[in-house]
Amino acid sequence: MPTMIQVARLKERIRDVADFPKKGIVFKDITTLLKDGESLKLVADLMVEEARKMDVDVVAGIESRGFIFAPMIAARLGVGFIPIRKKGKLPHKTVSVTYQLEYGTDSLEIHKDAIEKGTRVLVIDDLLATGGTSKSVAKLIEKLGGIIEGFGFLIELSFLKGRDKLKKYPVFSLIQY
Amino acid sequence: MPTMIQVARLKERIRDVADFPKKGIVFKDITTLLKDGESLKLVADLMVEEARKMDVDVVAGIESRGFIFAPMIAARLGVGFIPIRKKGKLPHKTVSVTYQLEYGTDSLEIHKDAIEKGTRVLVIDDLLATGGTSKSVAKLIEKLGGIIEGFGFLIELSFLKGRDKLKKYPVFSLIQY
Repeated sequence: MPTMIQVARLKERIRDVADFPKKGIVFKDITTLLKDGESLKLVADLMVEEARKMDVDVVAGIESRGFIFAPMIAARLGVGFIPIRKKGKLPHKTVSVTYQLEYGTDSLEIHKDAIEKGTRVLVIDDLLATGGTSKSVAKLIEKLGGIIEGFGFLIELSFLKGRDKLKKYPVFSLIQY
Repeated sequence: MPTMIQVARLKERIRDVADFPKKGIVFKDITTLLKDGESLKLVADLMVEEARKMDVDVVAGIESRGFIFAPMIAARLGVGFIPIRKKGKLPHKTVSVTYQLEYGTDSLEIHKDAIEKGTRVLVIDDLLATGGTSKSVAKLIEKLGGIIEGFGFLIELSFLKGRDKLKKYPVFSLIQY
């Protein structure tokens, strides 16, 4: 887990953008953190430290911002990376899951042969908000016989209680708001 | 540069998918490579080896597949990562470029404050095809006063002559077809 000083250092690099993606929402912009070499390396180091406490066969990342962290962690652990993508992006046979958004629905897909029965999967994304996306990803991985070893996030919006939806699984986040 | 044995090992992991994204096209599917821990690490090692020959201040990656490699390289070099995203995804002030596709056009954006004048940028993507996207990204970075230090790709489809469009810049690719 990061020290209080490390959390403060990372938070300092995250920018609040008002009214994005729509009016009334304050967006946590991590591009200002990512462009700082030391902060990027610190995030990787801290995520790897958490992942090493688990028994991880592969690291899955959710398109697009999960792709920034998951392969970095996977390569450091010496395991593979599995992309979970928006509908229609993966070229081979997929399984998919559709989930509710505030308005309408969205779909995510994973290659059918991405995960074998019993594979232990760490799922990485940038942000834990309501937990709806993560819950859907768990379903997707379990459909293929994979085992969710845990979820890891850079940022957790604790007031949205996403962790409650993921009660069955170990969850870590580096920064909480 | 990878040895012939390393290239053969990586090529073995890349899957041809016929008729994706549309009829007549044979798609190079890298998910089968990414899910193999040794291959993922080999790609990272080889890209870092090339990047170390350059003078890189930041590594930029093009959404979505460029995000898989660019942050991994950046963290290893100890420099920052800059995302270049599809239209409407970046929350702060952006500059954008629109480029021609076979049918219609597409747009990419970068944050205005992502790059300062004189910043030396290595641009990473998974695939060099016709070079149209890369050329547009160069324009985007140069608009902000950045200097393209080079382009790096996992795969180059040499028969599409994308390198000709990037003549002004150093270009490396790990695998050629």
